[in-house]
Amino acid sequence: MAESKKKKFTVCFEPSGLKAEVHSGTVLLEAAHKAGIYLSSICGGDGYCGKCKVIIDQGQFQSRPTTLLTPDEIRQDVVLACQTKVLSDMTVTVPKSHALQASQILMDTDAHRFSELTGEPEAGVFEFDPLVCKFTVEMSPPTVQDHTADHERLYLAIRKQIDAPIMQTGFRILQKLPYLLQQANYKVAVTVGRRGGTTEVIEVEPAGSRVTNFAVAVDLGTTTVVAHLIDLTNGTTVDTEATYNSQINFGEDYIRRIIYAEENNAFDEMQNRIVQDVNNLIVTLAERQRIDLQDITAIICAGNTAMVHFLLNLDPTRIRKEPYIASASFVPPIRAAEAGIQVNKRGLLYCLPSVAAYVGSDIVAGVLTTRIYTKKGLSIFVDIGTNGEVVLGNQDWLVCASSSAGPAFEGSGVKHGMRAGAGAIEKLTILDDGSIEFKTIGDTRPVGICGSGLLDTLAELFVNGIIDRTGRFNPAIKNCGAKYLAPRFTWGSRLTEGDEGLQFQLIPPSDDHQEILITQADIDNLVRSKAGVFAAIRVLMESTQTKSEDLEAIYIAGGFGNFMNVRQAVTVGMLPDVPAEKIHFVGNTSVAGAKTVLLSRKALKAAEKIAKSMTYFDLMSHPGYMDEFIRANFLPHTDLSLFPSVAGSVVRRA
Amino acid sequence: MAESKKKKFTVCFEPSGLKAEVHSGTVLLEAAHKAGIYLSSICGGDGYCGKCKVIIDQGQFQSRPTTLLTPDEIRQDVVLACQTKVLSDMTVTVPKSHALQASQILMDTDAHRFSELTGEPEAGVFEFDPLVCKFTVEMSPPTVQDHTADHERLYLAIRKQIDAPIMQTGFRILQKLPYLLQQANYKVAVTVGRRGGTTEVIEVEPAGSRVTNFAVAVDLGTTTVVAHLIDLTNGTTVDTEATYNSQINFGEDYIRRIIYAEENNAFDEMQNRIVQDVNNLIVTLAERQRIDLQDITAIICAGNTAMVHFLLNLDPTRIRKEPYIASASFVPPIRAAEAGIQVNKRGLLYCLPSVAAYVGSDIVAGVLTTRIYTKKGLSIFVDIGTNGEVVLGNQDWLVCASSSAGPAFEGSGVKHGMRAGAGAIEKLTILDDGSIEFKTIGDTRPVGICGSGLLDTLAELFVNGIIDRTGRFNPAIKNCGAKYLAPRFTWGSRLTEGDEGLQFQLIPPSDDHQEILITQADIDNLVRSKAGVFAAIRVLMESTQTKSEDLEAIYIAGGFGNFMNVRQAVTVGMLPDVPAEKIHFVGNTSVAGAKTVLLSRKALKAAEKIAKSMTYFDLMSHPGYMDEFIRANFLPHTDLSLFPSVAGSVVRRA
Repeated sequence: MAESKKKKFTVCFEPSGLKAEVHSGTVLLEAAHKAGIYLSSICGGDGYCGKCKVIIDQGQFQSRPTTLLTPDEIRQDVVLACQTKVLSDMTVTVPKSHALQASQILMDTDAHRFSELTGEPEAGVFEFDPLVCKFTVEMSPPTVQDHTADHERLYLAIRKQIDAPIMQTGFRILQKLPYLLQQANYKVAVTVGRRGGTTEVIEVEPAGSRVTNFAVAVDLGTTTVVAHLIDLTNGTTVDTEATYNSQINFGEDYIRRIIYAEENNAFDEMQNRIVQDVNNLIVTLAERQRIDLQDITAIICAGNTAMVHFLLNLDPTRIRKEPYIASASFVPPIRAAEAGIQVNKRGLLYCLPSVAAYVGSDIVAGVLTTRIYTKKGLSIFVDIGTNGEVVLGNQDWLVCASSSAGPAFEGSGVKHGMRAGAGAIEKLTILDDGSIEFKTIGDTRPVGICGSGLLDTLAELFVNGIIDRTGRFNPAIKNCGAKYLAPRFTWGSRLTEGDEGLQFQLIPPSDDHQEILITQADIDNLVRSKAGVFAAIRVLMESTQTKSEDLEAIYIAGGFGNFMNVRQAVTVGMLPDVPAEKIHFVGNTSVAGAKTVLLSRKALKAAEKIAKSMTYFDLMSHPGYMDEFIRANFLPHTDLSLFPSVAGSVVRRA
Repeated sequence: MAESKKKKFTVCFEPSGLKAEVHSGTVLLEAAHKAGIYLSSICGGDGYCGKCKVIIDQGQFQSRPTTLLTPDEIRQDVVLACQTKVLSDMTVTVPKSHALQASQILMDTDAHRFSELTGEPEAGVFEFDPLVCKFTVEMSPPTVQDHTADHERLYLAIRKQIDAPIMQTGFRILQKLPYLLQQANYKVAVTVGRRGGTTEVIEVEPAGSRVTNFAVAVDLGTTTVVAHLIDLTNGTTVDTEATYNSQINFGEDYIRRIIYAEENNAFDEMQNRIVQDVNNLIVTLAERQRIDLQDITAIICAGNTAMVHFLLNLDPTRIRKEPYIASASFVPPIRAAEAGIQVNKRGLLYCLPSVAAYVGSDIVAGVLTTRIYTKKGLSIFVDIGTNGEVVLGNQDWLVCASSSAGPAFEGSGVKHGMRAGAGAIEKLTILDDGSIEFKTIGDTRPVGICGSGLLDTLAELFVNGIIDRTGRFNPAIKNCGAKYLAPRFTWGSRLTEGDEGLQFQLIPPSDDHQEILITQADIDNLVRSKAGVFAAIRVLMESTQTKSEDLEAIYIAGGFGNFMNVRQAVTVGMLPDVPAEKIHFVGNTSVAGAKTVLLSRKALKAAEKIAKSMTYFDLMSHPGYMDEFIRANFLPHTDLSLFPSVAGSVVRRA
């Protein structure tokens, strides 16, 4: 037995042909990871999401019994990769729909598109004063009269150009400095980085004809990692790139990934994945722009607290356990190489400060970008991603909370949900004749529905009476079957009973695309998700005695798509009932905020002040949250008086 | 030929039996170094000091002709190791007197004794606030109400105990912090180090019952390296140790060593030597006091600019070349391990700031220790070692200069000169009957004469008319031969013609010791040395219009011995003619100053201010220096009006 355990077997995954050599008894999901195949796995390998189905073509294996496979599937040797052990050499087929690998290029294209959905930092708000800068320094060579040592000569010269009362120089730079100054005849290009109150001389080189200096700003999303290449000499964004977070096969949300890492002692692996993703983005950007990686001297990251912890391999376990704390909220700048990031070997890695375990630096970036912390009037900032974080406040105070709303509006847990990429329905209207008008990203054939499309779908189903205030398909329709429909529409057979209960056909199949459905389970997920966000908003508003009419603006950030109909967010009861002109869709404020900070020390100070001053409400332990959540599990809400602008149509229809 | 050059030969050195394998053509001095034998070499291998004599017992070699060997020596196969190439396997005998190796233990004992010659920092001058400190920090563990992250929790707790507005933490500490805090239940011992305006968290450990934290203060002398072990929890000196600088076989003065390093690309080797010396001292201290090297968290060094450059492997070459500059005068704190120092792997290495290429941090330490920078009245600080550095000033201004006086008062270039160690004559008086009374260090048999004894010798020979004002043996004595002597003495045969000219027997040989002589060359060296110091003092005084009567104090530092008769320094014209009570011998102020700085941030600030504010006079390019030097090449001086208190006896005798 011990002997056989030591045996190694080769597992070949078709159709890619990728192979992994693993010990006998290795779980097939792990073997897939090893082969570089990212199997979709929402539950993180716990065997209850049923997403990691594969077909065994050949070889011996042992599978735990599961209710997630149909008798047909079992007969066809379909197994859950996370519940199956390798007992011999094997050949395994990965169904196309389950392998992220298979459509990697498309996905990256999509993600790239998503990366562009970013509000540029408002010009002129913060003075241009980047955290890392490079400039030419010309000194007069020493003479008998001016015998200042090289090191101090350089400091004096630097201080003539920038404000740097406290300076540091690494030992290696110090050692090479004398030779370099002599060789360059005291004309050098100096790169300095700001490190929490001190200015570090990162690099000294002979002065060239032109100063080239770049940085990368990164939004570390749970799902998508977005990188912008910035020219640090003038602050412009040179190029953008994005990719899916390859941790995704350890769980779709970060709580799952933390559990996976803890149970499998996979913290290093978790770090490697995200670092590799970031490195891939950097290399892609650098190659495309023909930039030497050595000329990238800074990287700045914003993201949720867990992602930042994974990136730095800081203990993330207490993020999900009481008392829900981070290992570090204000991560000091470190050398990027220490975290494995492949830029200039002395380049710095900055992380924006975060507020709490569930309110990360992406939210601080959002507050910075929307500038709600500078306004007299009250604003709300909502970031809808895997979680729904909410900030409320003004120039005097800021409160925040995080609802574990689930990633329904990111397309997860929704049958035809998808992220904002090519083919995603981002706009959808039900016309009076019951037909549906839609727009897809890239104007291609419809593949699924992204966030803004899902919001439209939920709102349109509701306002057209297809679903009722509880989010159930209209009982009238249900009871009468597909033939009997609400008076104004001719439904044909669009509401049917599927494997997962009632489902409504939004778009019928055609030669070039499949049908697009929305199921009762999808709707339940979307309603829960919006209810979580609204309940969080309510708790903050109630705690601060804020009324809807007090709100001057609501900013929605997230990966909804380009054409978000913000009004629908009120219609379904996700946002408080304020006039549509007060609601602004602001896109990816995480990367925008990271860029703002990168380009100005004052912005970093502002971000630090925001992170420090924000009061965090822990909704898990908040007595009122669960009530608010239950009350919000209606369309738009149990209390219609909160939604006067919506109530009219609801009452009318009823 | 090319073939034979590649051959390797073994050189065996007797009587130690140490061996080295070297390529054909290797210089024998280099082979000795490789075998670990430190041959005395003043000229650094240039072939003109004649100190590296060895005897070839066996083997083929090639030697350059030299005038430094007598025909007898040549017949006995004596060669200069630095002028001899290895052409076969060889056996070589190292004369006992020339091998530092042979008497290493005695030397270390001596050096250890020398290390005690140190003024302790004045208590209470600077508040106790060490550059590195360790203390217990107890935090309340996080709760849902208090969800501050670990990193910020630690910072808050540290800031409750010490003033640390700007803090830094290394990435590795940051990563281990969460695990450590949980394991230690939020009660930890924190070590912090001050790094130029920031406070770095160097180490975090579970809190023990007792805080142990040590540092080592080092005087990096050209000849002697002295180390004091300091308990950082209370500032006491626990133990002291010293050793000879093992760079010594690359040249006795640092200029020679720089040339050697440059010509042989031996900068690494030079650093290895001094780092090894420091490490040996640290290990000796730690073992004797049963201290774990991990508990030594700081090392602080003062020394001349060249030695600090060697220690850190900073380019020292321009110290000796116009425009005579240092690579760094204000060396930032670095991790000791980066320089190869074996203390706590995150421990810091501090170097006191220096003023110029020829006025090092040892002089800054001296000014700090004597506190002349705080006094209303004018003082002079003189450090007499291999060079003679002089500082003049008060609380308003400080000027300084360095005379390349040569190490005569360190015993170098003096036939029976030696450093202040066991058997060194440190006190010498010529009695009226011509007999000589003397005291040796350790009250053992006389071995040689150290600094204070040499000063006595010069003064006594002069005041007793044995040498005249030009430093020549009295022509009357010389002309009359050994039989005819000055009237009051019965000289016997004490003035004789030796190999190196006239020589005067101070102490006749006995059963247990050799005779102790002083030669004309010795006296010339001593006069030149004192003239250099006095000329430097004169230049500074003239430039600042300072008169002898303006001087409130003169401080002499250096390794003279315990019983320096300071009055003699005026008699020979080394110091200005001030009353004896104004002259203070202050011992090793270099290590004392290093300790003062180690134990107080305010002292470091003071040292930095001293280094910055001191005006350096380059004597090489100073128009008046050479004149002053020539005028000072008399006893006490050509201008007797400068020495009224000495002039009387001179005139009387004449």
